[in-house]
Amino acid sequence: MLKQIQGGVCAASGFTANGIHCGIRKNKTKRDLALIYSQFPATAAAVYTQNLVKGAPLTVTKNNIEDGKAQAVICNSGNANTCNANGIEIAEQTCALLAEKLGISPKDVVVASTGVIGQPLDITPIANGIPALVDGLGAHSDYACEGIMTTDTRSKEIAFEFTVGGKVCRIGGIAKGSGMIHPNMATMLVFVTTDCAISAKMLQKALSEDVKDSFNMISIDGDTSTNDMLSVLANGAAGNSEIVEENEDYFAFKKALSAVTTDLCRKIAGDGEGATKLLECKVTGAKTEAAAKTVAKSVICSSLFKAAMFGADANWGRVLCAIGYSGADVDVQKVGVEFRSNKGTISVCQQGAGVPFSEEKAKEILLEKEIEVLISLGDGEGKAVAWGCDLTYDYVKINGDYRT
Amino acid sequence: MLKQIQGGVCAASGFTANGIHCGIRKNKTKRDLALIYSQFPATAAAVYTQNLVKGAPLTVTKNNIEDGKAQAVICNSGNANTCNANGIEIAEQTCALLAEKLGISPKDVVVASTGVIGQPLDITPIANGIPALVDGLGAHSDYACEGIMTTDTRSKEIAFEFTVGGKVCRIGGIAKGSGMIHPNMATMLVFVTTDCAISAKMLQKALSEDVKDSFNMISIDGDTSTNDMLSVLANGAAGNSEIVEENEDYFAFKKALSAVTTDLCRKIAGDGEGATKLLECKVTGAKTEAAAKTVAKSVICSSLFKAAMFGADANWGRVLCAIGYSGADVDVQKVGVEFRSNKGTISVCQQGAGVPFSEEKAKEILLEKEIEVLISLGDGEGKAVAWGCDLTYDYVKINGDYRT
Repeated sequence: MLKQIQGGVCAASGFTANGIHCGIRKNKTKRDLALIYSQFPATAAAVYTQNLVKGAPLTVTKNNIEDGKAQAVICNSGNANTCNANGIEIAEQTCALLAEKLGISPKDVVVASTGVIGQPLDITPIANGIPALVDGLGAHSDYACEGIMTTDTRSKEIAFEFTVGGKVCRIGGIAKGSGMIHPNMATMLVFVTTDCAISAKMLQKALSEDVKDSFNMISIDGDTSTNDMLSVLANGAAGNSEIVEENEDYFAFKKALSAVTTDLCRKIAGDGEGATKLLECKVTGAKTEAAAKTVAKSVICSSLFKAAMFGADANWGRVLCAIGYSGADVDVQKVGVEFRSNKGTISVCQQGAGVPFSEEKAKEILLEKEIEVLISLGDGEGKAVAWGCDLTYDYVKINGDYRT
Repeated sequence: MLKQIQGGVCAASGFTANGIHCGIRKNKTKRDLALIYSQFPATAAAVYTQNLVKGAPLTVTKNNIEDGKAQAVICNSGNANTCNANGIEIAEQTCALLAEKLGISPKDVVVASTGVIGQPLDITPIANGIPALVDGLGAHSDYACEGIMTTDTRSKEIAFEFTVGGKVCRIGGIAKGSGMIHPNMATMLVFVTTDCAISAKMLQKALSEDVKDSFNMISIDGDTSTNDMLSVLANGAAGNSEIVEENEDYFAFKKALSAVTTDLCRKIAGDGEGATKLLECKVTGAKTEAAAKTVAKSVICSSLFKAAMFGADANWGRVLCAIGYSGADVDVQKVGVEFRSNKGTISVCQQGAGVPFSEEKAKEILLEKEIEVLISLGDGEGKAVAWGCDLTYDYVKINGDYRT
């Protein structure tokens, strides 16, 4: 049984958080440094971008949590600390300064950055900010959430309560998304905390399995970032007996983890740069699950389909086109397409050919803020869901001059 | 020796063309039916989209030119004749009606369509238009060119004179591009004519080799169309001894073919939907040619890079990012990036890290209409060129409501 609760990354026992403006960004009203802290040592797992160009913080984090342990997460926005000659050094200094103030080992720090690539990151504002960042730790998931945002227009946090071995556990997460979002085996920035006791090995396993159905199924713009990272800290404060194998408890945990990641996926996709709509593509009847994923992601990535959705235009030919070039093994003659929203459902294509439909009804359905594209391939049991957003004038505006 | 000449698809001896408004489109000032005719039987070759969803005309054309022969090309715009139950029938009727009027075999007709997917194509305006279309045949490459355009803002034609075995030959082409442009083993619509004598087998070989470096290296929006087709008709009227093997004459022909296709590639990319700039990405120093192509195409396809170019923003981090996720085997520490235009060249990244540069100078360079992105990978001899365009408000506008 999953129950949604308040508190984001501070919902789980023993976790506090904070976010401040330290001066990396010029805009003084925007928090640019975030911290999540576990009062108890925690097991840790993470997944990272598959981009060959990797942000320096990812290398440092990977090294730090190799032992499956971490106690704090620090993340700045406004600068990606990527493609800088001194990137590793700056990320390590950040860990050292934070660890000293917290009284923990620098090796127990997860460090992350997001923002512009290729501009040296000055340690000064971070060094000056850490004391206030630590001193202000509390139930401030919202501050941390703001601290990691870039062009995001909404904060993204969620938490659930669940039960493992009779013990009440909590799991919560925060995320930032918006642009350069097309994760591959990892994602933008997502930090999850839980008080469930779970071994580092099982935590990594749960996470690696989960991202295949969650963050790897989002695309905002087809660009896989250099700084994608998703980490989970599990401090065991809930008192359940530690999950060390694939048993009932493990599946209960996985279900809770999936509730958090799916919610954050939808929030990230719906708040894509310039987006006015969340697009959810649900594929059924594929030969394999892999084929279903390929088709769902191809549709969600199509610029032409995305632009049509912005215009509330039921141009289903673009859906067929994206299915056709996806690379998945599909029998085009069996494809069916429907559009669905709060205003109803409309069938636009059956057996690979158009069917008559009311353009007026289609418009009414597509003018909603959350649109489902339902694709039936009629060829097997494989199914998948992918999330994206529409392509709008504002995407171009935001990205035409991001640096200045 | 290649010499650019006038005449487009009518430059080669024995070829005439025409384009009329027959009524497929509502706008009476826009030609929507095009014809290219060879007075003499010609050898023919073509390449087609790799999209599993294929326009009906492609199936009919493939069948018609299986014998390596054709004498006419007919193409309508305004309707793709794709995903329609009666698509094949309509395409075959078009061939039959045209063949009857021209006094040739219906099997010697190349038929193509471009426009909206999934709306039945009425044969009536085509049937009514064919007499005037044929009667008006002449040196009207420009009319044919307009007849195949959709959202194109400029007509795209080119012709060259070259020599094979002491005989002067001519080759010319027309193309339409603009949206749903991300060819895979073929391209949008391109029709090439030549009076060079070349066997159907060698013509197909030359064409298949050429597209790998030409049309398969363009992307406007990452969407591979259902109706991509590139055909060449060679009628031998130049009187050279027929090219039947890979000899000097073959390479002279290939060079001329490449001059036509490269020119049309640049024209298509520069006139992408909503585009204000032609982007040319030149990669050198890759481990292999395949790796160079992968990198060049990844950069040209990046929405974030394209939007930055629209804003004349030297955001080279996005170039590095796109190199990193391309999938090519690249040593990031060796990557160099320069931007070049008529206003000069500026180096922005060396050995994978940023170098100081004048933002003012970069802006001046990037405000030009044709931008080269020069990427050196420092890791081998592989090189490649890809073409694309910037991502603008108008792309979204055009595609937000294309059907109405």
